[in-house]
Amino acid sequence: MNKQVEDPAPREGNGRENILIRAGWLVTLDDAGRVVTRQDQAVACTRGEIVYAGDPAGLPQDFQAGRTIDARDGVVMPGMVNSHNHAAMTLLRGYADDMPLMQWLQEKVWPAEARLTGDDIYWGTLLAIAEQFRSGITAFADMYFFMDQVAQATVEAGARAYLCRGLIGTAPGAEQGLREGVDLVERWHGAAGGTVRAGLGPHAPYTCPDAFIQEVLAEARRLEAGIQIHLAETEAEVEQIRAEKGMSPIAWAARQGILERPVLAAHCVHLDADDIKLLAETGTFVSHNPVSNLKLASGIAPVAELLAGGVKVALGTDGACSTNQLNMFDHMRLAAVLQKARTGDAAVVGAADVFRMATVDGAEACGFERVGRIAEGWRADLVVVDLTAPHMNPHHDILSLLVYSARPEDVRTVVVDGRPVMVDREMVTLDEARVIAECGARARRLVE
Amino acid sequence: MNKQVEDPAPREGNGRENILIRAGWLVTLDDAGRVVTRQDQAVACTRGEIVYAGDPAGLPQDFQAGRTIDARDGVVMPGMVNSHNHAAMTLLRGYADDMPLMQWLQEKVWPAEARLTGDDIYWGTLLAIAEQFRSGITAFADMYFFMDQVAQATVEAGARAYLCRGLIGTAPGAEQGLREGVDLVERWHGAAGGTVRAGLGPHAPYTCPDAFIQEVLAEARRLEAGIQIHLAETEAEVEQIRAEKGMSPIAWAARQGILERPVLAAHCVHLDADDIKLLAETGTFVSHNPVSNLKLASGIAPVAELLAGGVKVALGTDGACSTNQLNMFDHMRLAAVLQKARTGDAAVVGAADVFRMATVDGAEACGFERVGRIAEGWRADLVVVDLTAPHMNPHHDILSLLVYSARPEDVRTVVVDGRPVMVDREMVTLDEARVIAECGARARRLVE
Repeated sequence: MNKQVEDPAPREGNGRENILIRAGWLVTLDDAGRVVTRQDQAVACTRGEIVYAGDPAGLPQDFQAGRTIDARDGVVMPGMVNSHNHAAMTLLRGYADDMPLMQWLQEKVWPAEARLTGDDIYWGTLLAIAEQFRSGITAFADMYFFMDQVAQATVEAGARAYLCRGLIGTAPGAEQGLREGVDLVERWHGAAGGTVRAGLGPHAPYTCPDAFIQEVLAEARRLEAGIQIHLAETEAEVEQIRAEKGMSPIAWAARQGILERPVLAAHCVHLDADDIKLLAETGTFVSHNPVSNLKLASGIAPVAELLAGGVKVALGTDGACSTNQLNMFDHMRLAAVLQKARTGDAAVVGAADVFRMATVDGAEACGFERVGRIAEGWRADLVVVDLTAPHMNPHHDILSLLVYSARPEDVRTVVVDGRPVMVDREMVTLDEARVIAECGARARRLVE
Repeated sequence: MNKQVEDPAPREGNGRENILIRAGWLVTLDDAGRVVTRQDQAVACTRGEIVYAGDPAGLPQDFQAGRTIDARDGVVMPGMVNSHNHAAMTLLRGYADDMPLMQWLQEKVWPAEARLTGDDIYWGTLLAIAEQFRSGITAFADMYFFMDQVAQATVEAGARAYLCRGLIGTAPGAEQGLREGVDLVERWHGAAGGTVRAGLGPHAPYTCPDAFIQEVLAEARRLEAGIQIHLAETEAEVEQIRAEKGMSPIAWAARQGILERPVLAAHCVHLDADDIKLLAETGTFVSHNPVSNLKLASGIAPVAELLAGGVKVALGTDGACSTNQLNMFDHMRLAAVLQKARTGDAAVVGAADVFRMATVDGAEACGFERVGRIAEGWRADLVVVDLTAPHMNPHHDILSLLVYSARPEDVRTVVVDGRPVMVDREMVTLDEARVIAECGARARRLVE
């Protein structure tokens, strides 16, 4: 498959419909980047693009809706972006908890991963996508292997994704991995109407020798591709890189030339002021992964300082074996409250900040253009959230409810690029029961 | 009403039924206090008591089920205990976020609370109870005012609760508050078949002068009542008490004689080694409130050290204005992962530890006997959790799924003291739509 080839399950307009949503509330960002909450709104989209968002009275009279979604008792928000995942690790959910990182990797994760087949990855990715849709996540960044199967699952399910083959320079198959990474970009970047993007994924400074990084960068420049990488995840990594290279992981990434590319850097937990300055100057996006960083005892990233320093921060879950659920509401709330405790200031990193991180900044971090806002000319990635459950009442502040109170169960309907993928909590594009059954059988085999 | 008076809405056996549950899995604690996971189990209860839990083949042949619950595709666990709440603060959910504690209290919370009527408290408490049932919470500790209405709501809805009138010695109505607190104990302790307990609730060291504390303690001794109190919540409190009294808040509580009573101490964020020793020696229960402590920038309690020091720790949400959702799954997961990051050791405070905190240790912290385990002779507080959603698959480890992956949406059926209060996600004992409508109207009036 290459970018000229259409959706492998073609249908009229790729399943995209002319959609009209009547919304009790709309929460989005305005042109100035401020989060705004508006009551009694209409949203219309055609061929995957939002053509109207505003007062229902102003809806163009000639708009013909193929599907009307009644959300007058709910709120419409932009689809959320999970900016760091290893999606098929859903297969290892709950298999290894409460263990130190190296023991977790060496005794549990790596042996199980060594058994993964391309089909396993395909089904595990579909399980992640189903879970993500149910959590209001319409787009995700992924770094794993057998990435053709990840791309296939993504396009079939109708998710938006930014995919990279993980590249470990110190492993025996390093060159083969790089070739697969290049293939992924050549075959999939821009596929399915631009809903799939692909880049290169050098794993981390401690797994990628400088010579290998230079090979990767040469390919990235040739392909005009972006980079996904793990940086400064643990204190041990920072100490190791400082000892070996005489500089911080961020400084190393800058010195290698990595940060000249569009970079999505996961974790960035252990940073100093110079690191933050470098990230801001180079326009590097940070994917903040609060649950994974807590659970693996890595620490709490300095998000308040990153935002104050002008760095754009997105939110990510990391793989389900370290985060256990792909729940972006939970990550919004946690990203906000952790910074308050870390800094001792309850006013830092508020609801609007994390809402922006989970939507438009996540989309930009993945290289998607005009994704993450509900406004004319933007792509129709839309989520309808119910306001009816006890925990979503009373309605003092709709943004606060979305960030601090909402849960995946409140997500009713999800549209990606104009295509309904979940309607009234029913999956449209994937057979959820079959996905769960396949993953159950495959998971048992992995740990036998 | 006093403890001799029956349930205000009496029905046959207080709505208790002979219940038989067929469970795919059972997660509970064994006699040695270890968390155990058993496949293919039956649980039977009569008049609110568990009469059998084990292999379905061993079920007494003469057991007559009035209701059979089929949970063969799910897991049965003990009802969870929310050991610190101000339940009616659901009315202020989302009204004030991202603010420093004193500004939050003085500009927003206190003015709104000053408008609260007894009826408001009644409806706000019902909203909290509905939300708690949906989250698998069968029992809660509450400290607020208009506590007759809290007790009334609790008994009508069929929750289990440990109630205290909050007592602020520095406020003009201190003596009146103490009389109301004493009345609460005299009228409600032991009511509704022992599902309601009541104690005294001196608010905190910085709001209760020593002379007032001695008055409260004299009443507590006379009534043989327990104590709920906030201790060592913020660094500022510890500094203030050290400056004024020359000792830590915990040492002050010991010196005053508070810790000679059965004490449920909320927060305990800022402790030294002597404090932990005192808490252990006196058998004081700590209610750990991780979300509230993060959101109000109080910090992260040293739970790993408390457990290592032999202190029993329960989990609490605090009021919905500082925690925003009464979600005990979320609190289990967060309690575990925060300690890993705080100590730098991913192996501390594992799934079994927080499961115990959320169930049997929470029940004991509230003074309930034979509550929090699924075993013969224990009270029938039971929760059925689905294992069917994408985020609850695959099934490597059921305990891990309950602690790290489960969400309130997975809770299907809830039984309190043998009385079904939610069946297949439908509320049995309360009119949820009316509760939400009442709370909406009342919330608007509070902030006008």
